[in-house]
Amino acid sequence: MTYSDASRPKDECGVCGIFGHEDAAKLTYFGLYALQHRGQESAGIVASDGSQVSLHKGMGLVHEVFSEATLQELKGHLTVGHVRYSTTGASNIVNAQPFTATHQGCTVAVAHNGNLVNIRSLRNELEKKGSIFQSTMDSEVVVHLLARCSHLGLEKALIDTFESIKGAYSILLMTEDKLIAVRDPGGFRPLCLGKLNNGGFIIASETCALDLVEAQYVRDIEPGEILIIDREGQRSLHLETSQRRSFCIFEQVYFARPDSDIFGKNVYQSRKRMGEILARECKIEADFVMPFPDSGNYAAIGFSQASGIPLEMGVIRNHYVGRTFIQPTQSMRDFSVRVKLNPIRSFLKDKRVIILDDSIIRGTTGRSRVKSLREAGVKEIHMLISCPPTRNPCYYGIDFPSGGELIANKKTVDEIRDYLGLDSLYYLSLEGLLEACGGPPENYCKACFDGEYPVAPDKDFCKLLLGTRNACQSTGKK
Amino acid sequence: MTYSDASRPKDECGVCGIFGHEDAAKLTYFGLYALQHRGQESAGIVASDGSQVSLHKGMGLVHEVFSEATLQELKGHLTVGHVRYSTTGASNIVNAQPFTATHQGCTVAVAHNGNLVNIRSLRNELEKKGSIFQSTMDSEVVVHLLARCSHLGLEKALIDTFESIKGAYSILLMTEDKLIAVRDPGGFRPLCLGKLNNGGFIIASETCALDLVEAQYVRDIEPGEILIIDREGQRSLHLETSQRRSFCIFEQVYFARPDSDIFGKNVYQSRKRMGEILARECKIEADFVMPFPDSGNYAAIGFSQASGIPLEMGVIRNHYVGRTFIQPTQSMRDFSVRVKLNPIRSFLKDKRVIILDDSIIRGTTGRSRVKSLREAGVKEIHMLISCPPTRNPCYYGIDFPSGGELIANKKTVDEIRDYLGLDSLYYLSLEGLLEACGGPPENYCKACFDGEYPVAPDKDFCKLLLGTRNACQSTGKK
Amino acid sequence: MTYSDASRPKDECGVCGIFGHEDAAKLTYFGLYALQHRGQESAGIVASDGSQVSLHKGMGLVHEVFSEATLQELKGHLTVGHVRYSTTGASNIVNAQPFTATHQGCTVAVAHNGNLVNIRSLRNELEKKGSIFQSTMDSEVVVHLLARCSHLGLEKALIDTFESIKGAYSILLMTEDKLIAVRDPGGFRPLCLGKLNNGGFIIASETCALDLVEAQYVRDIEPGEILIIDREGQRSLHLETSQRRSFCIFEQVYFARPDSDIFGKNVYQSRKRMGEILARECKIEADFVMPFPDSGNYAAIGFSQASGIPLEMGVIRNHYVGRTFIQPTQSMRDFSVRVKLNPIRSFLKDKRVIILDDSIIRGTTGRSRVKSLREAGVKEIHMLISCPPTRNPCYYGIDFPSGGELIANKKTVDEIRDYLGLDSLYYLSLEGLLEACGGPPENYCKACFDGEYPVAPDKDFCKLLLGTRNACQSTGKK
Amino acid sequence: MTYSDASRPKDECGVCGIFGHEDAAKLTYFGLYALQHRGQESAGIVASDGSQVSLHKGMGLVHEVFSEATLQELKGHLTVGHVRYSTTGASNIVNAQPFTATHQGCTVAVAHNGNLVNIRSLRNELEKKGSIFQSTMDSEVVVHLLARCSHLGLEKALIDTFESIKGAYSILLMTEDKLIAVRDPGGFRPLCLGKLNNGGFIIASETCALDLVEAQYVRDIEPGEILIIDREGQRSLHLETSQRRSFCIFEQVYFARPDSDIFGKNVYQSRKRMGEILARECKIEADFVMPFPDSGNYAAIGFSQASGIPLEMGVIRNHYVGRTFIQPTQSMRDFSVRVKLNPIRSFLKDKRVIILDDSIIRGTTGRSRVKSLREAGVKEIHMLISCPPTRNPCYYGIDFPSGGELIANKKTVDEIRDYLGLDSLYYLSLEGLLEACGGPPENYCKACFDGEYPVAPDKDFCKLLLGTRNACQSTGKK
Repeated sequence: MTYSDASRPKDECGVCGIFGHEDAAKLTYFGLYALQHRGQESAGIVASDGSQVSLHKGMGLVHEVFSEATLQELKGHLTVGHVRYSTTGASNIVNAQPFTATHQGCTVAVAHNGNLVNIRSLRNELEKKGSIFQSTMDSEVVVHLLARCSHLGLEKALIDTFESIKGAYSILLMTEDKLIAVRDPGGFRPLCLGKLNNGGFIIASETCALDLVEAQYVRDIEPGEILIIDREGQRSLHLETSQRRSFCIFEQVYFARPDSDIFGKNVYQSRKRMGEILARECKIEADFVMPFPDSGNYAAIGFSQASGIPLEMGVIRNHYVGRTFIQPTQSMRDFSVRVKLNPIRSFLKDKRVIILDDSIIRGTTGRSRVKSLREAGVKEIHMLISCPPTRNPCYYGIDFPSGGELIANKKTVDEIRDYLGLDSLYYLSLEGLLEACGGPPENYCKACFDGEYPVAPDKDFCKLLLGTRNACQSTGKK
Repeated sequence: MTYSDASRPKDECGVCGIFGHEDAAKLTYFGLYALQHRGQESAGIVASDGSQVSLHKGMGLVHEVFSEATLQELKGHLTVGHVRYSTTGASNIVNAQPFTATHQGCTVAVAHNGNLVNIRSLRNELEKKGSIFQSTMDSEVVVHLLARCSHLGLEKALIDTFESIKGAYSILLMTEDKLIAVRDPGGFRPLCLGKLNNGGFIIASETCALDLVEAQYVRDIEPGEILIIDREGQRSLHLETSQRRSFCIFEQVYFARPDSDIFGKNVYQSRKRMGEILARECKIEADFVMPFPDSGNYAAIGFSQASGIPLEMGVIRNHYVGRTFIQPTQSMRDFSVRVKLNPIRSFLKDKRVIILDDSIIRGTTGRSRVKSLREAGVKEIHMLISCPPTRNPCYYGIDFPSGGELIANKKTVDEIRDYLGLDSLYYLSLEGLLEACGGPPENYCKACFDGEYPVAPDKDFCKLLLGTRNACQSTGKK
Repeated sequence: MTYSDASRPKDECGVCGIFGHEDAAKLTYFGLYALQHRGQESAGIVASDGSQVSLHKGMGLVHEVFSEATLQELKGHLTVGHVRYSTTGASNIVNAQPFTATHQGCTVAVAHNGNLVNIRSLRNELEKKGSIFQSTMDSEVVVHLLARCSHLGLEKALIDTFESIKGAYSILLMTEDKLIAVRDPGGFRPLCLGKLNNGGFIIASETCALDLVEAQYVRDIEPGEILIIDREGQRSLHLETSQRRSFCIFEQVYFARPDSDIFGKNVYQSRKRMGEILARECKIEADFVMPFPDSGNYAAIGFSQASGIPLEMGVIRNHYVGRTFIQPTQSMRDFSVRVKLNPIRSFLKDKRVIILDDSIIRGTTGRSRVKSLREAGVKEIHMLISCPPTRNPCYYGIDFPSGGELIANKKTVDEIRDYLGLDSLYYLSLEGLLEACGGPPENYCKACFDGEYPVAPDKDFCKLLLGTRNACQSTGKK
Repeated sequence: MTYSDASRPKDECGVCGIFGHEDAAKLTYFGLYALQHRGQESAGIVASDGSQVSLHKGMGLVHEVFSEATLQELKGHLTVGHVRYSTTGASNIVNAQPFTATHQGCTVAVAHNGNLVNIRSLRNELEKKGSIFQSTMDSEVVVHLLARCSHLGLEKALIDTFESIKGAYSILLMTEDKLIAVRDPGGFRPLCLGKLNNGGFIIASETCALDLVEAQYVRDIEPGEILIIDREGQRSLHLETSQRRSFCIFEQVYFARPDSDIFGKNVYQSRKRMGEILARECKIEADFVMPFPDSGNYAAIGFSQASGIPLEMGVIRNHYVGRTFIQPTQSMRDFSVRVKLNPIRSFLKDKRVIILDDSIIRGTTGRSRVKSLREAGVKEIHMLISCPPTRNPCYYGIDFPSGGELIANKKTVDEIRDYLGLDSLYYLSLEGLLEACGGPPENYCKACFDGEYPVAPDKDFCKLLLGTRNACQSTGKK
């Protein structure tokens, strides 16, 4: 039994690269450690000392995949690292990143966060020209495109490659001596540049990675920018495009860590502001407001401050929940909810409570939690969600379930309320969310809420072209 | 590098036993899972089907030590389980519990939470009579005493054994067909009885274990009570004693889970009340109050509600911190603090903050955290602690560092404030703490604060009689 | 599926101890490595530096249980090591040796090869005096007896303890500063003393352990001798006894390594001589003689030389057979035989062959092998066994199946021949075997052949008093 | 410390494929098990049920890489499996086979035994056309070539691909519904076809794999043959070539298992015949002849029978030698020799012995063994080698050390004799070897002896184009 909490959306990846530090692999390790929330399935680091390239990747959390010994063998001042989450089926070591390949004696490594929407046609075209593929990763296509343009010189090859690619991508590339960061013209996923104490550089998905390695935030990689860092310094290329900004608003709502600043805003403060605006939009009487920890904590604080309704921690999180688990006995209903969040029975009995959470995806977990609160004797349960109903799938790198499984795709708010067993249910308005996140509303991709996709998706594309499973094991392990 | 957070006090154990359920081992597993916060070093379960006794124990977390397969081999309706923390040196599988032994064809198993203070003289006496010992566990002494009294019949043997023992103990004993719970006359450690859905019984250190297996709380095992459960029902014996109640007040402050009720009070509400009383005792001006999550969360909520000073979450906890870790590079100062709790720089800059935490043990972690906040640009840092200064070691089962390492044993509050780098530091008064915990003040052991030990300790006793190390490994592992 | 080859007899143990070498643990490791054939279930080493005692033991082969790191922590010049095989049921880490315990501040460790026959009455008596037991090992009883005699002084305690013990034992004892070797008055199991290059000493079950660590063979520990080695030198005590020599003849036939000298004879030469005498006793016409490798190799060489019938290797041994294995498909009959020994089909077709093997225990493996040869087209199959029919169980440390399962206990030689599917079957005569082994015939225990037990066994004793299972696991392993 | 016995030549691979059995993966597992001697570094199986392709591969022995569970997930009636040895540097999971890739929706898997000599120019050409490579395997090049020819239809693509390839290859290919075997025109490496009990087919490197799964040997795949097996039956294509037979004579001398028939001859009998011819060529007086077990066993038997000099087993092999090992102490000279083969001191003392072994590669191991025999008191040591001096590297799949490290490349036979410390040294003549192996002498590649390479090698090609290391680990393992 796995407690992967299937009701939560999954992000696909986090990336972190270092240029110009003798402990580059170790810094990358810590950067990935800080980005672990963006992907818990596999982790990998590729390093270069200017001529020799070494790679280590594996399934599991960052601290499970790497040891002092493996980090020591990743020699060099230049690295690219990656953490990944993936849907079942393609979940295996073949798809772990960074992806590396050689072409005419040169090694290139790619780490990718996002999702390309024209991958199928790109792949078809490449196969017609003779390319063969070992994985289902977008990264492998990127490397093929680069290889085929390599006769043009690096800069032209980069421009040609990324102008042929459509979708969301915050990509780190590494050659023997260069660290290259590319962000798609919409800027769907965050990507930022920091300066290390020793003068070297770090590029990472979120600023929390910079904090952990004590780097100073310099700036975000711009949408459409290709930043090349090598011994000669930094230079930027820019993709020609008419595409407008498309910052993923769900990063603010759910994915990014609250201590990160993304798209120019601190996430903690955005989330708190969502709670404040909810207090303005929804007037409810209750004894107190409480979050489902930790995802609802920040909006709950904002809501409590703005509404004057006291904040309480009515359910307690077990910090020792492992990733796999023993099947409970038949009589233990709703066990998988209670093992993670236990209601304080003596405190909740006969209370009128407002629950604050950040999203409802399938609704199954929420329903069990509400039932568990009812059994603890809670009298009234009102739920506030700090974003609008999530109605549409994401084609830009967030692994929502397909449309039909999103509860808000099939049910009205009233129907969801009844399904969850609530006394009332309110969602933050889209306007309220945009106000909370700040900046021009048109700069955000909010397709999961309103269905307006800034880049046309290739909806039929099946991610799982390959049926191959390729689990690698070390000696002596089955 | 291990992130065991040496600055935190450690509890010695949690216990959980089941009588009368066909899935007894599985329920015990979940009970231990809920009690994991009481001991993360080893876990074990012994089971009996009325005639055959089986045992599985190992080093690690509950979900690491047990699998579906190992649970299935623990057959029977009767079990005793244990989780343990231990100081370095005696940390090995020989000391993992439950401890089992046979005597004249009968098997007895013991799981123990607490610490005996006359262990040395008991052991000396037993050795004079010919006993030999394989471990340094109190439990082994208990079994020897029981064996030597066995000619008296079970009940008389229990009375004689436990009247010769002094100190803190919440013990579960198992024979082939009986579950026996014993709590010392002072009742230092919690121990409660619950009823399972099917009519069977559970006895556990805290009520949160009852919640997870959906048992109904019945009552606490009384101080000085010996409760015997078998096919014929329940019966209680009582130790003759003049000792008064000595509930460990530090269980309320720090150890117990907030969703547990212990000593007749809900822990969450006690902790919130500590914050409220702190607000009454200490008047400070600040922009907001923030806890070090999660230990300070509950008092911070109480403080905020009582003082009107807003609550904020200014530092974010990384939920993916492993137990062992890579050594950071030399330039990464205070890394071990930041990897766990990262300050939100953009939010904290130029703020006047009140930190709420539950205790200061050595002071080293607090000092690093304060430094980390200063570097994030916090203008004023005031700290409130939800208990009095911890000045004295515990001889009843809490693994504080020895007196000399307790910062409050050597320094005044002003000196601690300066050492931590604070603008101000306040502790909750002992009276305030007793008010928050409720019940008659004389019912608590508060020796760590006031040095009044309810049972005279044997201070010189070295826990580590044996120099033996006995690490067991499964096939193929080194 | 486990290829433990249940049809082979199992020895219980091998022991190895070192006194006076700074790398004592490492030398013991290599000694045990050479003795691995005497026990593959668990391995352990206890070491002392004169004051501090450390122990490491685990389930598995010597090279699986120990690593450079674990050996480095076994500090000191004094060690005792053990390898063990055990029957199912008691196969767990609790029964792994060396067994250690403390009594009045002194640690004693015991490693034992053999089997005590009065263990039940000794144990009963000890329990009446208050002893409790954690394992089913003979060693634990030895330690209890020693502890109860300790007031008499070491030498008297040793004499009293071992004069109360009956059966087969080659025991190594270790205190903080002494290495003690004891061999029962019959001398059932081998035990020899060697001198290390640096002047230190090694005591081991067989001389092959001395060879690997480059020690010079000094002498056998005498039957009934107690040899004490410490800083002051060596001294010997002698148990008073009327018991005559009882060297286990099956060590010569099967257990000991052919490169060892035991009971004053080289095993390779004894086995070759068995083949020579077989050639004298049994006249068969055949194209060639071939062994089941490697157990029949040596007698086959002797037989070939004496008879003039050519030696061939008609079946080939697979050297990569693991200890556990995948279940074959249903159509793969007799798979477990063929996976280990594959007949050379093109060579064997239409041949008349003599098979030479060292024993027939249950007969099941032999039957499958014969069938496999028939399927390869062998025309005539004659089998010669280099010892008499094994008719009786052993109570002195060899784990034959119980009497009823020994094929020669129930069937005549003709019936065995038919059961195995042979054209003819011959056993070496007991006289022939004694001639091959040399020395006075009355010095051997040959009870498995003739049923004359030199020390009266306690036949009803069940080895498995305890039903406890105690598998220990390291962190993260299930 | 690894006991990989660097002085022995290494073969590169073994292959095994099944068509038409519901337990195809399990049969392949057993086939690889029988072929384990051809490669111990990694193992892999790819399976197809006609549409879905699944793959499992890992580092280690066959029984370490696969479990019942992993085999069950390899569904289908069609499989290709591989075991591999590789030189250091390219030893990692990226280079484990089978290699799989997709092209235009089709999956192809390749398993390869041998070595291509024009790999560099093929790879250059492919890279010019845009191919990128992830590994250094010959197999990856084969797949690229096939993909680029795929528009021609399967049969033409196979012909075109393999006519462009030069060198030694016994290759198994798998598409979703076809098993394809290809053997180079010289037939360097063995490859044979067998029929399963149920009517299905097996193709494997050696006949010992057929024996284990109870298949009937049908015939060898012919040099230059492409055999395609699918639902419609079998059909063969033939590569046009003027190349003559080039059977690797070292397979007969050393690599193949003695119970296999290769190149139409049984290996055991060939090796025995080598010993017989040695007896004719070299007349030596000695007390006996003895092999270094097990490699010299078979020639020693032949030598003894032909010369009348008795055969003895003067050194005993330890069957429990692990692949990695503890570093011995400094005083333990020549330890790595003795741990594997221990001389029987009491038997060898003052004897004149003839050692029979199959080859001398670097000479270092042989030298240590001779020294070890001298220390055991052997009076005269004569050595016979059952092939001519190995003077030249192999470019067709045997991993001899490079020319300079082959002792016979630098030293005369007399110099080798002195280096090893022998009284005399004789090699079998090339004529003698060819006579022993049978068949027309011109059908063998004997380049390692005479330097006449049947296919011109690309001597400068460095196998290690990629510097990447790609070790994959399962969760929780470092």
